[in-house]
Amino acid sequence: MRIAFIGLGVMGAPMAANLLAAGHQLSLSRVAVGRHDALIDAGGEAADTAAAAAKDAEVVIVMVPDTPDVEEVLFGTEGVAESLQPGTLVIDMSSISPTATKEFAARISTAGGHYLDAPVSGGEVGAKAGTLSIMVGGSTEDFEQARPLLEVLGANISHIGEVGAGQTAKVANQIIVASTIEAVAEALTFVEVAGADPAKVRAALLGGFASSKILELHGERMITRSFDPGFRIRLHRKDLNLAVSAATELDLALPSTALAQQLMNAAVAAGDGDADHSALVSTVRRLGGVTA
Amino acid sequence: MRIAFIGLGVMGAPMAANLLAAGHQLSLSRVAVGRHDALIDAGGEAADTAAAAAKDAEVVIVMVPDTPDVEEVLFGTEGVAESLQPGTLVIDMSSISPTATKEFAARISTAGGHYLDAPVSGGEVGAKAGTLSIMVGGSTEDFEQARPLLEVLGANISHIGEVGAGQTAKVANQIIVASTIEAVAEALTFVEVAGADPAKVRAALLGGFASSKILELHGERMITRSFDPGFRIRLHRKDLNLAVSAATELDLALPSTALAQQLMNAAVAAGDGDADHSALVSTVRRLGGVTA
Amino acid sequence: MRIAFIGLGVMGAPMAANLLAAGHQLSLSRVAVGRHDALIDAGGEAADTAAAAAKDAEVVIVMVPDTPDVEEVLFGTEGVAESLQPGTLVIDMSSISPTATKEFAARISTAGGHYLDAPVSGGEVGAKAGTLSIMVGGSTEDFEQARPLLEVLGANISHIGEVGAGQTAKVANQIIVASTIEAVAEALTFVEVAGADPAKVRAALLGGFASSKILELHGERMITRSFDPGFRIRLHRKDLNLAVSAATELDLALPSTALAQQLMNAAVAAGDGDADHSALVSTVRRLGGVTA
Amino acid sequence: MRIAFIGLGVMGAPMAANLLAAGHQLSLSRVAVGRHDALIDAGGEAADTAAAAAKDAEVVIVMVPDTPDVEEVLFGTEGVAESLQPGTLVIDMSSISPTATKEFAARISTAGGHYLDAPVSGGEVGAKAGTLSIMVGGSTEDFEQARPLLEVLGANISHIGEVGAGQTAKVANQIIVASTIEAVAEALTFVEVAGADPAKVRAALLGGFASSKILELHGERMITRSFDPGFRIRLHRKDLNLAVSAATELDLALPSTALAQQLMNAAVAAGDGDADHSALVSTVRRLGGVTA
Repeated sequence: MRIAFIGLGVMGAPMAANLLAAGHQLSLSRVAVGRHDALIDAGGEAADTAAAAAKDAEVVIVMVPDTPDVEEVLFGTEGVAESLQPGTLVIDMSSISPTATKEFAARISTAGGHYLDAPVSGGEVGAKAGTLSIMVGGSTEDFEQARPLLEVLGANISHIGEVGAGQTAKVANQIIVASTIEAVAEALTFVEVAGADPAKVRAALLGGFASSKILELHGERMITRSFDPGFRIRLHRKDLNLAVSAATELDLALPSTALAQQLMNAAVAAGDGDADHSALVSTVRRLGGVTA
Repeated sequence: MRIAFIGLGVMGAPMAANLLAAGHQLSLSRVAVGRHDALIDAGGEAADTAAAAAKDAEVVIVMVPDTPDVEEVLFGTEGVAESLQPGTLVIDMSSISPTATKEFAARISTAGGHYLDAPVSGGEVGAKAGTLSIMVGGSTEDFEQARPLLEVLGANISHIGEVGAGQTAKVANQIIVASTIEAVAEALTFVEVAGADPAKVRAALLGGFASSKILELHGERMITRSFDPGFRIRLHRKDLNLAVSAATELDLALPSTALAQQLMNAAVAAGDGDADHSALVSTVRRLGGVTA
Repeated sequence: MRIAFIGLGVMGAPMAANLLAAGHQLSLSRVAVGRHDALIDAGGEAADTAAAAAKDAEVVIVMVPDTPDVEEVLFGTEGVAESLQPGTLVIDMSSISPTATKEFAARISTAGGHYLDAPVSGGEVGAKAGTLSIMVGGSTEDFEQARPLLEVLGANISHIGEVGAGQTAKVANQIIVASTIEAVAEALTFVEVAGADPAKVRAALLGGFASSKILELHGERMITRSFDPGFRIRLHRKDLNLAVSAATELDLALPSTALAQQLMNAAVAAGDGDADHSALVSTVRRLGGVTA
Repeated sequence: MRIAFIGLGVMGAPMAANLLAAGHQLSLSRVAVGRHDALIDAGGEAADTAAAAAKDAEVVIVMVPDTPDVEEVLFGTEGVAESLQPGTLVIDMSSISPTATKEFAARISTAGGHYLDAPVSGGEVGAKAGTLSIMVGGSTEDFEQARPLLEVLGANISHIGEVGAGQTAKVANQIIVASTIEAVAEALTFVEVAGADPAKVRAALLGGFASSKILELHGERMITRSFDPGFRIRLHRKDLNLAVSAATELDLALPSTALAQQLMNAAVAAGDGDADHSALVSTVRRLGGVTA
């Protein structure tokens, strides 16, 4: 397939590499510094603008940081919409606002294109290994068309519902992960301050009702203070901003999510913005006067 | 072994039955109405008071609702301490204050006894099946002495540390479970209000970083509105009261735990006190104006 | 003075009327339906666009709902910037983002104009009576130039600091008001549920450390359930969105403010969005199961 | 009148001195070290125990730190109940649990006595000056009997309702004061981090809807970092513990109060427990990474 791939950062570059390896033709835009050569060597073609990349593409994949970035690459100057061919499928794999997604899809549709939102989880590790979880919103037809490509990128592909439903699922994912991290951080800090051994408590709790991927993986990181990302607090905070904004648009109170967002602000203020999100435990420990 | 078993409610009665079935001699105190006959038929001996039950016991097991109940059966009028033989091992399997536990252990020690705190998780189902998780605080010697009995009652026996460490681990467990339930409740309500399908989102999220026993089991209950306990909100709230009190004694801020405690107050006020703790989702939905 | 006044809603219309009454020449844009005639009768001149209104103005006053509205009237198609004369003073009296304010001021400055942010508090009553509190950010020179106009509109004019400082002060105001309303709501609901008389408690507390304008005025509204606005929950929520966004940009955790924001979401979901912000007590009472 | 005064700490000692100065006979118990001589010189009579102090008293005034202290001096060994004469009026001016208060009153009544709860606000300054605010629960008859004494001690005496209503009002007072301090702390820290002048903002906000005794007095302390108590965070936290416990007994969710309680834990952990409660701003600033 002829694919325009726009956004080649930490996540996008290995995803593009996997698509090239699977034999697809890629036109590449917004190549991050230093990632260019390897992808060109692997057969990718550099494009100066998003419009140029999208010109002859059957599928346009977008993987950029935030809602305004998607708006810019789709509808800005020299954006995708300027050269969009009728019938082209735009797949936005960024994590952005569900509401904006619906609006972007409507505009692409008006321009003759099709639209899927397909945000991912699984991080850089999953992007490289092609084992991402991908949550997809859009029509069944478009989903079926995209499926072969998505199966190159991920191991767990779910069609959630109409356009926007993929982003909604991703928001739900980030809500759960954030509050579970905070829960584990409070529990393990409590154990530490109470004078018991967090490692033994973690081990005892795994398998019971308190068991979670977060307790297993991030709990371990908290105990060993191993905060190399993984997923950065700064990025998780961005996703919580999306969650709180989306909830406010829906008149929905999410007090635990809003609290986690505030604690991530504190983590960034303390200099942990580029640490793994398990470093939220450092904020809880500082609040408890634990400085060791 | 000659065991005094004090407290035969929803949890205690099946635990006592399992010990009888394993061939131990039981002297029973505080038999809940209607649970008496089956245990006596199975070979248990009724005692009028905790002191009478403990008189000739090698091991005293306590399984009562809250900190003041433990204090009363141990140190109240006609309590265990009045008849405690030197060397007797007291095992408190109730879920109570870690701080009070240390004080109770010291008083039992002064009276010539030994003390383990060994709270459980796994609920009525685990109590009947003998598959409880048991978190134990106390000396290694006492733990080894108790181990054969605990293995009759549970499947996952952890020696966490000194006296009090078992209760500390149980508090940590209840902190994580409560905040994770709230996290899943916020996420699934967000999905519902945003117009996507919570069941599809739950399925998509299982296996990823948001995966937890709570998402799997309680998430299902939330989606199907199946709130038969399980573990009652009223009881979980009691455990959060312990958590917040214990944290306050330690000058530790647990904002997410305190929030969950308040939301459980709201759940009880709405009439959900005797529903399963997954019914916390009803409070989140009411806050969002979702009444269907 | 020749003034362009853009935005003639609930607040803007009476403010414009006061300026007309004080003898100023007004060119009016964005006249809300039904407010037009009275202002024209009073000597105002209708303009079709913001650019037309601003063409010959010495001062441009903007009073619109939110950040994107200010951006549109200043820099959108047929906006103020298109016709701005060198030296014109733009006074934005809307309540908007402090960060965006700095950016807007820089763009106006580049276009040869001057800029003050001058948000108000005091509501419709204060707008009509000319007794608004006005918090001003900008240079001392610009402030002194604007002062005679601001004194027509308000009774309490404060020059806080550089551009943006007026909006910062307004955000601070809305943070305090929101959390104080929540505090009074929790206290009076506690009293009610505990079986004492909220009116007597309110009276006893006035004069002591718990005393505030909110306890005095909004406390009375809560007790008598008189929720005619005043200031609508929907608008206060918008201001809290500004506060939380601005704090996030600054990596600042404001947990109490974020909680109030979420509770206002719940209030809107319950149908209280157009009630006075003192109706936040209804959300607290519902959480407590108080339905009378 | 013959008064037994039990509890002569920071608050009790100057209150007792005022009663002596007004010509009453005082029998003194639980005299804090160093406060004894002045009160004896002023005509007070030392008693070895609460029972001895109460033996011939017409009125017993209790002013001790917390609920268990009141229980001990009333009903413990050599407590008031042992020597209580029929018709004696017990006035508890401590700040304790409203629920326990009702129980204590019932026991005093059974013993032939009368009971008022009459907690105060106004701090050491008010105690010395005789200008305390006093919130009273109990029968109108008992209130009228106590009034002449209370008027010696305070300037603002309110009969709120039945027994317990005084403590309920005091809890409401502490809820409002705590959350208002947090609100002002968040607002002023926001202003500081945003680069504006907190002193100017405070001045601008006084007089408007954000105006409160706390903004006036504690806001000033926050800005000048003058944290000599005043009222200690440690004691305010104790009162919030009462508030949260009382609310939980009533199945009432008080999320803002619970949050303030947790932040006071953090303040104590940071070493600010004996600072004035306005030092809660230091916790907010630390969360924001402001260390200057």
